[in-house]
Amino acid sequence: MSSQTLIQNVVITPVAFHDMPLLNSVGVHEPFALRSIIEIILPNNVYGLGESYGDSAHLERLQRAASKIKGLAIHNTNAIYRAIVDSLASDSGAGGDGMSGMVTGTSTADKVFSPFEVACLDIQGKLAGVPVSDLLGGRVRDTVQYSAYLFYKWAAHPGEADDEYGAALDPTGLLKQAHKIIDEYGFKAIKLKGGVYPPAQEVEAIKALRTEFPDLPLRLDPNAAWTVETSKWVAKELDGIVEYLEDPAPGIEGMAAVAKEANMPLATNMAVVSFAHLPSSIAQDAVQVVLSDHHFWGGLRKSQGLAAICNTWGMRLSMHSNSHLGISLAAMTHLASATPNLDYACDTHWPWKRRDEDVIVQGALRWHEGGVVVPTAAGLGVELDREKLAKLHQQYLDCGITKRDDTTYMQRFHPEFSNKLPRW
Amino acid sequence: MSSQTLIQNVVITPVAFHDMPLLNSVGVHEPFALRSIIEIILPNNVYGLGESYGDSAHLERLQRAASKIKGLAIHNTNAIYRAIVDSLASDSGAGGDGMSGMVTGTSTADKVFSPFEVACLDIQGKLAGVPVSDLLGGRVRDTVQYSAYLFYKWAAHPGEADDEYGAALDPTGLLKQAHKIIDEYGFKAIKLKGGVYPPAQEVEAIKALRTEFPDLPLRLDPNAAWTVETSKWVAKELDGIVEYLEDPAPGIEGMAAVAKEANMPLATNMAVVSFAHLPSSIAQDAVQVVLSDHHFWGGLRKSQGLAAICNTWGMRLSMHSNSHLGISLAAMTHLASATPNLDYACDTHWPWKRRDEDVIVQGALRWHEGGVVVPTAAGLGVELDREKLAKLHQQYLDCGITKRDDTTYMQRFHPEFSNKLPRW
Ligand SMILES: [Mg+2]
Ligand SMILES: [Mg+2]
Repeated sequence: MSSQTLIQNVVITPVAFHDMPLLNSVGVHEPFALRSIIEIILPNNVYGLGESYGDSAHLERLQRAASKIKGLAIHNTNAIYRAIVDSLASDSGAGGDGMSGMVTGTSTADKVFSPFEVACLDIQGKLAGVPVSDLLGGRVRDTVQYSAYLFYKWAAHPGEADDEYGAALDPTGLLKQAHKIIDEYGFKAIKLKGGVYPPAQEVEAIKALRTEFPDLPLRLDPNAAWTVETSKWVAKELDGIVEYLEDPAPGIEGMAAVAKEANMPLATNMAVVSFAHLPSSIAQDAVQVVLSDHHFWGGLRKSQGLAAICNTWGMRLSMHSNSHLGISLAAMTHLASATPNLDYACDTHWPWKRRDEDVIVQGALRWHEGGVVVPTAAGLGVELDREKLAKLHQQYLDCGITKRDDTTYMQRFHPEFSNKLPRW
Repeated sequence: MSSQTLIQNVVITPVAFHDMPLLNSVGVHEPFALRSIIEIILPNNVYGLGESYGDSAHLERLQRAASKIKGLAIHNTNAIYRAIVDSLASDSGAGGDGMSGMVTGTSTADKVFSPFEVACLDIQGKLAGVPVSDLLGGRVRDTVQYSAYLFYKWAAHPGEADDEYGAALDPTGLLKQAHKIIDEYGFKAIKLKGGVYPPAQEVEAIKALRTEFPDLPLRLDPNAAWTVETSKWVAKELDGIVEYLEDPAPGIEGMAAVAKEANMPLATNMAVVSFAHLPSSIAQDAVQVVLSDHHFWGGLRKSQGLAAICNTWGMRLSMHSNSHLGISLAAMTHLASATPNLDYACDTHWPWKRRDEDVIVQGALRWHEGGVVVPTAAGLGVELDREKLAKLHQQYLDCGITKRDDTTYMQRFHPEFSNKLPRW
C-alpha cells in the first residue's frame, strides 16, 4: 500500500444556497438551504468530493469523523466506516439530519460515513482513470431519469419580490409550474409534494395533472400527513392514476395497514430509512418501493446492498432527494446508472436552486430529456470551483441559519401552524 | 472508455487434479476433481483469472457465455451479467453444478457469471494497481482464517497404495487426521464432514474431537443425511459442543423444524443457496448461518450483497468450499478479508489436493497460523503457470471424467449404496 493513497487531510466546508418557499407537511423551506462539502486530500493533492447535510449537529459529527480517518487508506472504506462508528461511541445521535424532522430513525453512522465514502470513491475513480459508476459495476443506462418535483409554494419568501416560479397554491398554479419545469428539463415523470392542503384538494391536483399530462407517471407524497383511514380513501381515489403513493401514513405499521387495501405500490423515505427497518417492514409487506438515498443509507455501496435486498424481496427502488448541489447530483447519477433495479425516475430538488449557485465547475452535469447524462470522466466527474465554494461558505456565515427548521420558519408567518402528523 | 479495456478474448480450460477418497452422504470423491480455469484477456494482453466447476454442462455454459461477452468493457460487470442471462435464455439449467447433486437450486446465471466477474475484478485491480480486496471495500483482516476440514475417508482409492492421509473410518482415524492437518496448517477451527456413518457414531467422533481439541470450535455437516427427528436428537447431544450444526436435515422447512428445538445455530449451504431462497428461509428463521460461496452466489460483489442481507437480518456468515485450486482460494480470501461479517473460519478443501498440483505460480498464497495471508499484489495476486495449466488440462483429457459423480463411483465398489437422503 503506497503512502500516496493514505488520507492526508479532510476539509469540511458548510455552505448555504438560496432556496424557494416550498411547502410541505412540516412547514416551508427557509430562504437558504444548508449543505456540507467534504474534500478528502491525498499527499499528492489528488482530492475527492462528498456532499451532505449542513446542520450544525451533523457538521460536528463530520468534523469528529474527519479527525479519525486521517492516515487511513483511501481504498479501505471498511476501515473508515469502523473509525466513524468509533467516533460516534458517545454520541446520542440526536439532531443533524438536515431533513427538518421529516426523516427520523436513520442510522447516524451511515449518515456520517456517506460523504466520506463518496469522496473516497471519487478519488479511487480518479486514480484508476474510471468513472465512479465503473466502481459500482458499470453503467446500465447512459442517462439517469429524474422526476419533475412539483411543490405547492408561495410566490416568494415574505417581504421579497416574486421568484421566477411564482405561486402554486392550487391546481392551476401547479399546472403552470409543471409546464415550466418540464419545458426546461424534459422530465418524463411527475411527483407532487403534498401534505399541505386537505387531501381532497391534493387528489384534485393530481387529477388535474393526469388530465394535463396523460402520458406521464404521477406520484403524490404527503410526508405522512394522513391517517390510515384517509390514506385508504386517497388510495381509492387515485387508483390507476398514480404509479405509487409515497408515505401516505406514518410508520411501518401505518403503511402496512394502508398497503392491505391500496391497489398501487406504496413508496417510502420515512417509514423505512435504515437497514434496521427492513425486517419488520418486509415481514408486514408495508412498502413496495423503497426510496433509496445514499446520504442516509451509508453511501453508494451500501445503497447497492439495499438494492440487492429490494431485488431479493421483490420490492422496487426509487430515489429520495433533499435540496442539494452538484456533487450530490453526480453521486446520485453514478449510483442510479450502475444499479439495474433502481429504475424509477429519481427525485431531485435541482430545479429549485439558482442556476448560478453551486460549488462545482459548471458544465460537468448535462441535462438531456429529463435525465442527467452519466459523467464519463474519472471519479465523480465534477471538480470544485473554489471561488464559488468560498462564496457559498460566506453565504452560510451570513445567513445565520445553522439548522434546517421548516416549522419555525412557517410559524413566523402562521403562528397557529403545527407540525403534528398525521394532520388529516 | 478506452478500447484497451474491452474484452478481447476469453479462454476456458478444463483441468483435473488428483483428489482423495473423501466420503460424504452421496458417495465418495473420485480420483480426480474437475475445475474450469477462465482467462479474460484485454487487447494489451493484460489478463484476469477466474475458476469454477468443470462439469461438461457447466463448461458448455461458460463457453456460450464467453462468446457473448467479448467486446464488453472490463468494468461493466452489470453488462456482462445481462449478456450471460441472455446466453441462458433457452437453457434448462439442468446439471453442471459440479457438486455431485448435493447442492441444487442454485441460480444458473449466478453460477456462470461468477468466474467471469472474478476475472474482471482481477483485471480491474491490476489496472488500478490495487488488490481485489480494495475493490470490495478494503481488508478488515490481513489473514483469512480457514477451518480444518476433516473427512471420513478410505486409505486409498481402490487398487492404489495408501495416500499420505490414510484411512479415517472412526474417531481414532479422525483424530490422527486432525492432528496431521492442524500440525501442518495451524487451523483454529474444525469441521467434520458427516452423513457417512449412523449419527451416533458421528456424535461420538465430535465428542472425541472435543476432548482432544478442547479449545477449537467444532462443526458437523452431514449434508442433509438426517430426518428432522434425528437432527433434533443430534442437536441435543451436541448442545454446547459445536459452534454450529450444518445442514442436518434437507430443505428450508426441515431446517426450520430443527431450528425450533436446536440450541446452536444451524448453518447451510444446501437449503439456502440462492437469493430466491432467502425470503422463505428468513420468514421461518430456518438458518442462522449462511455458508456463502462466491462460485454459486454470483461472484464477489453479489456475495457482499448476501453479507448485507445477513447483517440486516442478524444471520451470521461462513463460507462453503468444493475441491478447488489457487485462483479460487485467492478469490475466497479477498472476499472474506473485505467482508466484515464473514467472520467464521471459512471452509476449504485445500489440504486434500497435492501440493504440487495447481495452475498458479507457487508462492503467492501463504498459509500462516490457520489462515491465508491476503495477497497485497494488484488484482487477485496470483499468476497463471501455463506449464502447470497444460499439465492439468492433459490430466483432464486423460482421466475420462466429465462430470462429478460421487454416487456412481461409490456404487462401483458398494453396489448397494443409495444416495437417497435423509438416510437416518
Ligand atoms: Mg418522500
Ligand atoms: Mg456443507
